[in-house]
Amino acid sequence: MTGEFPKVRLRIVLAPGIALGPGKADLLQGIAETGSIRAAGRRLSMSYKRAWNLVGELNRGFDEPLIETGKGGAGGGGGARLTGLGEEILARLRAIETTIVSTAEADLDALSARVKKDVEPGADSG
Amino acid sequence: MTGEFPKVRLRIVLAPGIALGPGKADLLQGIAETGSIRAAGRRLSMSYKRAWNLVGELNRGFDEPLIETGKGGAGGGGGARLTGLGEEILARLRAIETTIVSTAEADLDALSARVKKDVEPGADSG
Repeated sequence: MTGEFPKVRLRIVLAPGIALGPGKADLLQGIAETGSIRAAGRRLSMSYKRAWNLVGELNRGFDEPLIETGKGGAGGGGGARLTGLGEEILARLRAIETTIVSTAEADLDALSARVKKDVEPGADSG
Repeated sequence: MTGEFPKVRLRIVLAPGIALGPGKADLLQGIAETGSIRAAGRRLSMSYKRAWNLVGELNRGFDEPLIETGKGGAGGGGGARLTGLGEEILARLRAIETTIVSTAEADLDALSARVKKDVEPGADSG
């Protein structure tokens, strides 16, 4: 398990009121993988309402929608998928996270080295 | 104002239960600048209780404290300051953020270019 640390998560504030944070990135990825807003939200322990709210923010915040829902479309009973722009934005977010882990490796390693070794998993706020 | 965008904020999960996110980074900076946990929390619209909880998490999560409180010390009625380790960790967090903005510039610019131009400031969740 420890091989996956440090993990870096990003919040990018693109303009006042337009932010791409870990929740939106994971939701985009979940929709891409499950084809469903409900299933993507469930996987993230996110309420259906919250998942839809984030989809709405994403679709309103950019010059084209990032997610399209297939009400009555080819998918039949709904379903959702990323648009080309949605796929591009998800890929760029993941690329930035990967870049960080490589370019900031020395700083990340220095932080990791000072973590208490016998600490118990606990709160993860702030 | 737009010159300050995109802003990048980081959450680094160093180990299970040990995360450094924007709240902790800003709190460390606030304590360094104000010499007070209460004043730092207030500046961040953070309750005193939450500020103290984050200080506790920071001090328990690393192999030395990051913040020392000066009860009865030279500061008289309390006060707080970063330890050497606290200063080092804050500096590394800010260095990583700066690195991101420069190394991920092309991806960040590409994201910014697709933000809707007439959007109203709104929710900033996820």
